[in-house]
Amino acid sequence: MLKQSFTRPPMGWNSYDNYDTNINEAEFLRSCEVLREKLLPFGWEYAVIDIQWYAANTASMRDRFQYIPFGQVAMDAYGRLQPDPVKFPSSAGGRGFAPIAEKVHAMGLKFGIHIMRGIPRAAAHQHLPVLGAEVTADMVANPSSICGWNPDMYGVRDTPAGQAWYDSIIRQYADWGVDYIKCDDICNTNLYPSHFEAGHEIDMLKRALDKVERDIVLSLSPGPALLEQSWRYCEDANLWRITDDFWDDWKLLKDMFVRCERWQDHVREGCYPDCDMLPLGTIGEMFGNGKRISNLTPEEQRTMLTLWCIFRSPLMLGAKLTGGALDSETLSLLTHEAVLSMNLEGQKARQLFRNDREAAWRSAGPAGDFLALFNLSDEPREVAAPLQSPAALSELWTGASLQAEGEARAALPPHGCALWRVTKL
Amino acid sequence: MLKQSFTRPPMGWNSYDNYDTNINEAEFLRSCEVLREKLLPFGWEYAVIDIQWYAANTASMRDRFQYIPFGQVAMDAYGRLQPDPVKFPSSAGGRGFAPIAEKVHAMGLKFGIHIMRGIPRAAAHQHLPVLGAEVTADMVANPSSICGWNPDMYGVRDTPAGQAWYDSIIRQYADWGVDYIKCDDICNTNLYPSHFEAGHEIDMLKRALDKVERDIVLSLSPGPALLEQSWRYCEDANLWRITDDFWDDWKLLKDMFVRCERWQDHVREGCYPDCDMLPLGTIGEMFGNGKRISNLTPEEQRTMLTLWCIFRSPLMLGAKLTGGALDSETLSLLTHEAVLSMNLEGQKARQLFRNDREAAWRSAGPAGDFLALFNLSDEPREVAAPLQSPAALSELWTGASLQAEGEARAALPPHGCALWRVTKL
Amino acid sequence: MLKQSFTRPPMGWNSYDNYDTNINEAEFLRSCEVLREKLLPFGWEYAVIDIQWYAANTASMRDRFQYIPFGQVAMDAYGRLQPDPVKFPSSAGGRGFAPIAEKVHAMGLKFGIHIMRGIPRAAAHQHLPVLGAEVTADMVANPSSICGWNPDMYGVRDTPAGQAWYDSIIRQYADWGVDYIKCDDICNTNLYPSHFEAGHEIDMLKRALDKVERDIVLSLSPGPALLEQSWRYCEDANLWRITDDFWDDWKLLKDMFVRCERWQDHVREGCYPDCDMLPLGTIGEMFGNGKRISNLTPEEQRTMLTLWCIFRSPLMLGAKLTGGALDSETLSLLTHEAVLSMNLEGQKARQLFRNDREAAWRSAGPAGDFLALFNLSDEPREVAAPLQSPAALSELWTGASLQAEGEARAALPPHGCALWRVTKL
Amino acid sequence: MLKQSFTRPPMGWNSYDNYDTNINEAEFLRSCEVLREKLLPFGWEYAVIDIQWYAANTASMRDRFQYIPFGQVAMDAYGRLQPDPVKFPSSAGGRGFAPIAEKVHAMGLKFGIHIMRGIPRAAAHQHLPVLGAEVTADMVANPSSICGWNPDMYGVRDTPAGQAWYDSIIRQYADWGVDYIKCDDICNTNLYPSHFEAGHEIDMLKRALDKVERDIVLSLSPGPALLEQSWRYCEDANLWRITDDFWDDWKLLKDMFVRCERWQDHVREGCYPDCDMLPLGTIGEMFGNGKRISNLTPEEQRTMLTLWCIFRSPLMLGAKLTGGALDSETLSLLTHEAVLSMNLEGQKARQLFRNDREAAWRSAGPAGDFLALFNLSDEPREVAAPLQSPAALSELWTGASLQAEGEARAALPPHGCALWRVTKL
Repeated sequence: MLKQSFTRPPMGWNSYDNYDTNINEAEFLRSCEVLREKLLPFGWEYAVIDIQWYAANTASMRDRFQYIPFGQVAMDAYGRLQPDPVKFPSSAGGRGFAPIAEKVHAMGLKFGIHIMRGIPRAAAHQHLPVLGAEVTADMVANPSSICGWNPDMYGVRDTPAGQAWYDSIIRQYADWGVDYIKCDDICNTNLYPSHFEAGHEIDMLKRALDKVERDIVLSLSPGPALLEQSWRYCEDANLWRITDDFWDDWKLLKDMFVRCERWQDHVREGCYPDCDMLPLGTIGEMFGNGKRISNLTPEEQRTMLTLWCIFRSPLMLGAKLTGGALDSETLSLLTHEAVLSMNLEGQKARQLFRNDREAAWRSAGPAGDFLALFNLSDEPREVAAPLQSPAALSELWTGASLQAEGEARAALPPHGCALWRVTKL
Repeated sequence: MLKQSFTRPPMGWNSYDNYDTNINEAEFLRSCEVLREKLLPFGWEYAVIDIQWYAANTASMRDRFQYIPFGQVAMDAYGRLQPDPVKFPSSAGGRGFAPIAEKVHAMGLKFGIHIMRGIPRAAAHQHLPVLGAEVTADMVANPSSICGWNPDMYGVRDTPAGQAWYDSIIRQYADWGVDYIKCDDICNTNLYPSHFEAGHEIDMLKRALDKVERDIVLSLSPGPALLEQSWRYCEDANLWRITDDFWDDWKLLKDMFVRCERWQDHVREGCYPDCDMLPLGTIGEMFGNGKRISNLTPEEQRTMLTLWCIFRSPLMLGAKLTGGALDSETLSLLTHEAVLSMNLEGQKARQLFRNDREAAWRSAGPAGDFLALFNLSDEPREVAAPLQSPAALSELWTGASLQAEGEARAALPPHGCALWRVTKL
Repeated sequence: MLKQSFTRPPMGWNSYDNYDTNINEAEFLRSCEVLREKLLPFGWEYAVIDIQWYAANTASMRDRFQYIPFGQVAMDAYGRLQPDPVKFPSSAGGRGFAPIAEKVHAMGLKFGIHIMRGIPRAAAHQHLPVLGAEVTADMVANPSSICGWNPDMYGVRDTPAGQAWYDSIIRQYADWGVDYIKCDDICNTNLYPSHFEAGHEIDMLKRALDKVERDIVLSLSPGPALLEQSWRYCEDANLWRITDDFWDDWKLLKDMFVRCERWQDHVREGCYPDCDMLPLGTIGEMFGNGKRISNLTPEEQRTMLTLWCIFRSPLMLGAKLTGGALDSETLSLLTHEAVLSMNLEGQKARQLFRNDREAAWRSAGPAGDFLALFNLSDEPREVAAPLQSPAALSELWTGASLQAEGEARAALPPHGCALWRVTKL
Repeated sequence: MLKQSFTRPPMGWNSYDNYDTNINEAEFLRSCEVLREKLLPFGWEYAVIDIQWYAANTASMRDRFQYIPFGQVAMDAYGRLQPDPVKFPSSAGGRGFAPIAEKVHAMGLKFGIHIMRGIPRAAAHQHLPVLGAEVTADMVANPSSICGWNPDMYGVRDTPAGQAWYDSIIRQYADWGVDYIKCDDICNTNLYPSHFEAGHEIDMLKRALDKVERDIVLSLSPGPALLEQSWRYCEDANLWRITDDFWDDWKLLKDMFVRCERWQDHVREGCYPDCDMLPLGTIGEMFGNGKRISNLTPEEQRTMLTLWCIFRSPLMLGAKLTGGALDSETLSLLTHEAVLSMNLEGQKARQLFRNDREAAWRSAGPAGDFLALFNLSDEPREVAAPLQSPAALSELWTGASLQAEGEARAALPPHGCALWRVTKL
């Protein structure tokens, strides 16, 4: 059963930004340990294994391919993908991710996985049986429905046999103990520009989730999500990406203000437009070019957290956690309770204005409004927003206090922000 | 001041569908009399004078132009458009629409007018002064911002002088006693495909409205409105067209189901996506091809009303009212209290499903849910929607009652519908 | 070797319009007999086997699929497609189409086949070796490059191994005795709108053809071809489709006037923009809905032939030839020597004018200009074109003669044409 | 009468790149003197006055507008634009540009002017008479057809009165002695994306030109020209811009290789796709930011000249000529006879290959082929093209000679080129 409502956007950690296709069981569990110890107390509860956990030799051709074409994938007799036994030894004997889920749950965390829309190409070409269907995988797969950037799957036809396929995999994931599914190549299927081809597959996922007892969060990728499908995303899923992959680049961060503007009307309980993972700390280690420290400056990092939190985006951390990689500055940013409270408690966030140089947002909180001012320019800049009555302003990041009348004004460094709790005097 | 919230979508009558550019004072006031007598008791309260009330000789070149290029328009010394004194004699002596508004109000009705985005081209070419601005109209008008289908105006620059222009006209309309402004060429400015060029003019209208005491409804045309601007429409205006001009044509009516699907998440108190006027009864009289009775069949008319009401679209009637033109079937349709109550009281309307042959909608009402089934195909067809528990179904149009379990099912004629109030047993 | 220059556009017969995917050896050879006897004397020399000659059971799921997804295809050890041995028994023992080609050549005809761009999906998934390459098919195939409407192939990467693949198949076709290759899914790959993805595969085909001794005509499909690639088509190929599939429908025929207008500058020796096959006589027999007589009226048929011939399109007949299906009216149309001479000898064809109701074309011939007037409207209509000097006009279809000065004028039935040889007096 | 064929692309000088809207009579005639003395002997023969010669006070609001909206323009009683008498004193008394044309002709040069598509907005709003038409300008002008970037004109309707308008202005220009008309806002009217709106105006210009005795070259702007209209450009005009405004920026120069690739099939006698003016020497003086020396490096300048000349683009110089501004390096580039001979004599220029890093072109000349290799990358690079037989290579820019077999290879600096005359050994 799909967990229909949350009191807040999901928070957690995802393996992609650091490990690409190459997270393995040991490293994942070590990451969970750090997550439990350092971040869980602040609400970071999901631990998610990202793309191609089912694929063999994923790092072996990294100079040429992120995803090896026509490579070997682990499947059961019904074409359902299984963890690659080399990367995830505990999956041996058909146990799937159940052993890992059990350990994750024991830590008080929740367990998530990434999946690709559709059915394995290999299953279709091998005419494998589909559990619960009378036809084989070649009749379930649509040979014209592919992912533009990953070679593993075909889209699924809108038929009872297609529904049986999705029922069969969701049943398996529920049995394993999965709490969170990030389904990729389904939110914006950008190979098919004329119309949205995969809407029926989102609906089928929802129906399959309704048939299992387990509460499972459904996250849709990639973005940019389509506004004309907003009603469907909210009906069927819990979060959906409003951007293509977000990385540690000011240009992308600045662009997120445009995206949040467009989606501001669509945040409601259980429905969270998603600004994507937080590329903080150490990232990129397994992408073939060596690891790096996030390119975002401290100002940009605060601007990012402020926007994500006032907009109420899901918060999924991309940073490497193991080996002491989680530095204290990053940790401090991620555990700032006053700021996180806005993500938890804010209501009716609205952009007050935006142009190429500045922006402002306001949302309502239980102890006064939140007001955020942003300097989007590359120069120091004063930014101001009107106040309807004299107010006390308490800066959340710094703790500084002041009183103001008429407007709230801040001198901001390039790409910087101010974030106040506003209480009427 | 903009009237920020309504308890229901506005209802009324508009001159366009029958009179094109040629409504005059006498005919308008006669129409208001019929409106007052026959429809006001059922909530139809706005009477709106549509396009080119300021233009002279509007019918004189109807075989070649709907809008005469570079034709004569009535303006005051500040370039503000005035009613054409031939069509609206009471406007003589600079009284504008005040005398008409007074009579409309005396009938218990509210008075609306149509305006075009921008400033008259004639004012710009004549370098007329702008009330409250230090520059003349040639500096306020943007010569590259035109309407693609009407030759009267230039768009206005996003400057203090531009704001002064909008302030000056809104002040005039408030002084006249205008209750409702339908601003055209502003919701979707389809000559400028790369980006939304007129957003700042919507904002300027809103700011001007905030400066006057009078409550004035703001309606934006034409559609299709842009989903990426939905937040702005709702912030600044009260209703906005989600379709290009709607006429009495099944193809357009069927297409409205697609539009309502996309906008279903955007209906909220004070914010009403608008399906456009109801082309019922006698229409088209002044368009140059003779008048006609609406081409919509009785089934299609009920389908139209049902969709508009469950979706909670504004209801603006296009039918000719004078000379006994309002036939009893049309009148009966427009005064069906059970159906209108859905437009008044419905909440959280959602499309249950839609494909090329059928659709279903549900909304919540104070005395049970509303459930509408539609046959979109050209053949008789049974349409069904699931029921979560055994229920009593009362058909609103016919009054027929039945009990059902598991699903509500109806045998529908082509383009027909069923509309039930559903109460749990 | 690519046949670099022709003295005229190719003429012949193609199996598709009547047989879909289901032409077989016996029926093809019977068709060739009729072609040889009735049409070869007038220049119709190519006999072409169209799509999926390599696929098994092609008609078995015709109610659901034109092309069975993940169906069985005949391949050799190197993944090269072979004729399905059930449909083409003489191909047994690895002889391919060589026995059929030999018989076709013996009749004085030339032999053509249809191929799909790329390498079989089955070869890629099975990691088959590629003749002359060091890597296997999974490294040659691009998993993101598919055909939007046929499930058989993957596109080929722009690498030496990719070139080896194309070399290996062209070598095989040359060895078989193929004279004409119609390569599909390569001229306009409409799944990939952002840029032309398959240009490198056109180049690779050309390079492969340059390496064999045999003269082979290269025809590219489907259309509409892209004007920005016109230089490449002409450099690499002999004909290319300027339209999506053309059928017996006036709307498509009228639309061809737009296409010919755009491509008129691109007809030159050896380079022929292609208006597609002539859907005349009996067609459609194997498409699952029964055969039909062409829906084009006699007037439309003459208009089609006139446009194709003055524009100098290739002429490929789609009509069923066997069993006496080729009626005498169609035969007479196809053997009209005066009209065909225009296709053979015309030079510098130019559209004189075109609007929604009429069009005119002129080209230069050895014995005077050709002038064609077309009535594109649905009513009888007089159409005229200016003459620069007094002239004798000889109507090619009817043989009628007249003299004219100032203009050539004809009273034409709906969709009809006049076609004159113009000689100065 | 339109000068239908040239033996070579036109060469000359244009006022725009240095003077924007502000060239005046004295400065223009001084420029002509330099042109006559330094460049005419090498073929540079046209002297063209660019945009807004009819507009008053053109430089007075340069900080805000390039073209003053609703500004004052000089017209005669029929709405025909006249030179601004302040900038062009000799035009007083209705003499127009005749006195200037006479002086230009006396220097052995040819005289060109820029015009905007359409009829002055002022003429339409004032309902001025149109010479030779029975209706006034308000019926000739199309109020929906504007230029997206210049406020002066309305497009003209496709009617006899519209043709009379174009006849009246072309007759005036012919009477003045104009040899070259650069018509702007007509080649690509980019405000109207759905279809080409101004094609009829190109045809009307052509018809008007056919009615006068004077040979006048017709040049169409702006680009990028539309390939689907190539037949029309060539039928009606002599040159047409294949690019938006070209300036001294490597990015634009590199992009020109894409444009030349697409248009390579369209260069023929009398028909010249136009790469735009050469921004060499001193430019930009009157654009409001001060003058500058061309930002193109010496290597880029040679690359530009090489591409323009092998492609056979028209050559119109943008450099300031007066006051000694024409430096010796620029002059030497513009008078390099061996390179210019390629522009004069080259035939059948073809791109051999192009990718992001390199490109090669070949054309046929009377004394051997021309072969150009380009390094499009930002690093030094060896570029090579195949030779079909052993050949002597003579570098045109440097005069260096060598012999080569199999391929011609050059080590090129970033953005540099080699240009050889190739003669078989």
